[in-house]
Amino acid sequence: MGPLDWLRHYRRADLGGDLCAGIIVAMMMIPQGMAYALVAGLPPVAGLYASIAPALLYALFGTSATQSVGPMAIISLMTASALAPLAEAGGSLYVSLAAQLALLSGLVLLACGLLRVGFLANFFSRPVMNGFTLGSAIVIALGQLDTLLGVPLGLDRLAHPAALLHGPSAALGLGALAILLLARRHGAALLRRLGLAPGAADVGARLAPMLLVGASMVLSAALGLERHGVRTIGAVPSGLPHFALAPSAWYWQPLAKPALLIGFMSFLIAMSGAQALALKRAEKLHTDRELLGLGLANIGSALSGGFPVTGSLSRSAVNFAAGARTQLAGVVASLLLAAALVSPTGWLAHLPLPVLAATIIVAVLGMLELDTLRTAWRYDRADALALVATGGGVLLLGVEAGVVLGLLLSLGAMVWRESRPHIAVLGRIAGTQHFRNVRRYPAETAAPVLLLRVDAGLFFGNIEAVTTRIEEELAAHGAARHLVLVLSAVNAIDTSALFALLELNGTLAARGVALHLAEVKGPVMDRLKDSALSSQLSGCIFLSTENAWDALARNES
Amino acid sequence: MGPLDWLRHYRRADLGGDLCAGIIVAMMMIPQGMAYALVAGLPPVAGLYASIAPALLYALFGTSATQSVGPMAIISLMTASALAPLAEAGGSLYVSLAAQLALLSGLVLLACGLLRVGFLANFFSRPVMNGFTLGSAIVIALGQLDTLLGVPLGLDRLAHPAALLHGPSAALGLGALAILLLARRHGAALLRRLGLAPGAADVGARLAPMLLVGASMVLSAALGLERHGVRTIGAVPSGLPHFALAPSAWYWQPLAKPALLIGFMSFLIAMSGAQALALKRAEKLHTDRELLGLGLANIGSALSGGFPVTGSLSRSAVNFAAGARTQLAGVVASLLLAAALVSPTGWLAHLPLPVLAATIIVAVLGMLELDTLRTAWRYDRADALALVATGGGVLLLGVEAGVVLGLLLSLGAMVWRESRPHIAVLGRIAGTQHFRNVRRYPAETAAPVLLLRVDAGLFFGNIEAVTTRIEEELAAHGAARHLVLVLSAVNAIDTSALFALLELNGTLAARGVALHLAEVKGPVMDRLKDSALSSQLSGCIFLSTENAWDALARNES
Repeated sequence: MGPLDWLRHYRRADLGGDLCAGIIVAMMMIPQGMAYALVAGLPPVAGLYASIAPALLYALFGTSATQSVGPMAIISLMTASALAPLAEAGGSLYVSLAAQLALLSGLVLLACGLLRVGFLANFFSRPVMNGFTLGSAIVIALGQLDTLLGVPLGLDRLAHPAALLHGPSAALGLGALAILLLARRHGAALLRRLGLAPGAADVGARLAPMLLVGASMVLSAALGLERHGVRTIGAVPSGLPHFALAPSAWYWQPLAKPALLIGFMSFLIAMSGAQALALKRAEKLHTDRELLGLGLANIGSALSGGFPVTGSLSRSAVNFAAGARTQLAGVVASLLLAAALVSPTGWLAHLPLPVLAATIIVAVLGMLELDTLRTAWRYDRADALALVATGGGVLLLGVEAGVVLGLLLSLGAMVWRESRPHIAVLGRIAGTQHFRNVRRYPAETAAPVLLLRVDAGLFFGNIEAVTTRIEEELAAHGAARHLVLVLSAVNAIDTSALFALLELNGTLAARGVALHLAEVKGPVMDRLKDSALSSQLSGCIFLSTENAWDALARNES
Repeated sequence: MGPLDWLRHYRRADLGGDLCAGIIVAMMMIPQGMAYALVAGLPPVAGLYASIAPALLYALFGTSATQSVGPMAIISLMTASALAPLAEAGGSLYVSLAAQLALLSGLVLLACGLLRVGFLANFFSRPVMNGFTLGSAIVIALGQLDTLLGVPLGLDRLAHPAALLHGPSAALGLGALAILLLARRHGAALLRRLGLAPGAADVGARLAPMLLVGASMVLSAALGLERHGVRTIGAVPSGLPHFALAPSAWYWQPLAKPALLIGFMSFLIAMSGAQALALKRAEKLHTDRELLGLGLANIGSALSGGFPVTGSLSRSAVNFAAGARTQLAGVVASLLLAAALVSPTGWLAHLPLPVLAATIIVAVLGMLELDTLRTAWRYDRADALALVATGGGVLLLGVEAGVVLGLLLSLGAMVWRESRPHIAVLGRIAGTQHFRNVRRYPAETAAPVLLLRVDAGLFFGNIEAVTTRIEEELAAHGAARHLVLVLSAVNAIDTSALFALLELNGTLAARGVALHLAEVKGPVMDRLKDSALSSQLSGCIFLSTENAWDALARNES
């Protein structure tokens, strides 16, 4: 389906759900946007800007109906770690660099979409992704402790252990933290007891941060908490963002690598979220179109005073649960945020930072999902170790090194896996037409004939292992004069493998062993038939293993 | 077999071949060693040093009986490109850095051997390797033109187009080039006509460079070519290298990355050569032991005034053809070179550089093998493009960028390939127990039952594509109430795939479709049986597709 098809074929039946979901997501986005802007080291309003144009553009060009695109904790963390060495957080240069970073990330995503390399989303294994998320969540939470406890900025902890926290701020922060944790644990149940439908109750509970933030603003304004030394977010300029990107200086070179990593991660994060939701609705995603939508969302963010954005799984889940059926929900949320910005924003100024820090910590605590680790530990120790290594990498080496480490671990696992294809010596189940692995079934074999089934496509990554194994089996079956490669599971033979098979054919022939092929798949045969292998093959190409057996084993015996 | 087993079980019958091969390889090594030292920007004697200890150490610890380890054109080129930015070629710092680079490369290889990551040799596809070799060969040949034609050093060509060549040098160089090309083309035939056995004739022809170099030295000494402005290699210090490595300063940091790349490439080059020879002799290589041998060879080179080394395919082929049967041939060659160094070396001083340049150019022209490109172009256009891209990368971006580009292209191809597994809808061949792809065979199906065979291990790299395809097939078979995944070709299911299957199982159940598994391989079943999937599976696990068909299709019809 093309862009905006959802609008062309909009069904009125979906309107209610979309409106309701849009309103709820907008209410979630106000505190989240400002909070993640702080994580990124930016003024809170930037988070609101980054929630408007991106959500709108994604709704118009993305493919996931319920994906909520905007600021996201991990991407904000990556933004902060990318900009920290280049400018002072919060400064005008910093703000401009954040926009440039969003622009570059957007261009990276756009380029990947146009090059149709969406398959790169398959680069990260799930345990590695989980490890990356765990590590990032911990880093983010730790980063908020100062704000939560009201530790004076730039304080040397060791020098002033006594002044490690500011009473009123800490009370406010820890109180908010407690309330949010309780709401998270018991909120839904409470609302259900108050008569809400289970679904509604779950969604309602997700609004706790918004209500708490509202209440804390009133409290803060009434008691004048600023005067008691509680830091607040301060004046939030009212009005829509200015669509412009004319930085005093471009920082292409230092931002290039971070932009690549951020583009890559925002794609992975958005896809994993969108796929989880798509599965629920048996909805089909177009990976390359997703890249396009995310790319435009980031470029839009750059042009409207924002910073790198991606799909937020938590918001998307709420959006879905709140009844969103089409991209209209995203459009509604985006418009409501715009409306909130044009209305007077003075009331936001009193929002206490400790409360906002509490919402951040609770939000990322939701990412601390240890089920994957537990399962992996029981199911595949190597995957579990990759998870821990990636998480540890984020904690010890930083979030960017974590991405690279995760890539290397995933790819290393892939290459390692590829380098050990499953190869079975086949025998015939007596009296049947079935040929099975002699290690697992009582099957009859014939000394002069060696049947080998390779259960993997033949290519540069495994052909060496295959030929080595063939030599081993031939050594173990000294009497074999016919080697039959059963290719029933081989759906591709690349050029490297073609050459290796040609060499194998030659050397085996020199040693008086004929090389035969059986059960060659159509697409593979189409390629092979014009190649040197089919003309030089010392043996024959049999349609089935049975034919090979009849032709070779019977004659010999 | 362990180190030195070849010595313990040495058979006298092999002695003759080993001695003869050792002598011939030694004669090849003298000009080649000095020539490749020049390519690396080092004094010629360094090439001789790098041919002694490394060959000895590899013979003692390596696994290939006929591999000849020492200076090699491509590795010398990489050495030059790594050191060029750090020091002036030929200077004492440059010489020390070359040794440090060899040491680091050796440590990299050693570490890979101890970590048993020899499988990384499967990282480069054959076309990519070929493209890398082509590009490097051209770069090396072009680099020798100045010396071949006697262009004055540091001459601005555009300023003095007239002085582009020095008559006597050019005459000597081009003459040598012509002779070597003729010897290459017709030498063997000529020797055969003179009565040599074909094998001996081929080997004899390979000695042409050595003879030419000898003759040119005599000529140069007799005519005093130096006085006519022909550059010669000059005094070669006599005596064995001093075993020491005490540089004035260590350059770990700038040499780390080049050392990684050189270690990687020297491993790839040595393995591809050794594997080609091993295949000829049905001899088994131990990849990790190869890494050990190469690592020690490079460390030995570093300690004896040498530079990075690897196996030389051309020399190894001659070694093999000349009758080498065991590592003794390498030991003999090494000892002969040592003997040559302790004997007076004054006679080497007159060797004209243009002649040496000619031997280099002819040697690398031997690498210009276009057969792979031709085959790939016909067989798999994508592989051909990867080849051209890598070769172009070496030419335009340099040899290091070429390695990285080759890696990315190979890995990209692997991931792309993984992301599109072959999946077949199965039907039963009427009246048989066979189930085949309905696209290729006239097979009967049953509306309520969808049989899907996945021809690839399920893991993070392809599970998304698999689930997507499953959704498509379910959409195409609306009546299906049973989905049977036939796992006959699935030899592994990683944690990512396990989670995806769990989710699939849940969502399908919610839509009234039962998920069944059939023909689960033993090793896969061993893992699955304790996992959540086997307990939560909405359907059954059938031993064979036939059982599934009987249980599901028959009941339904």
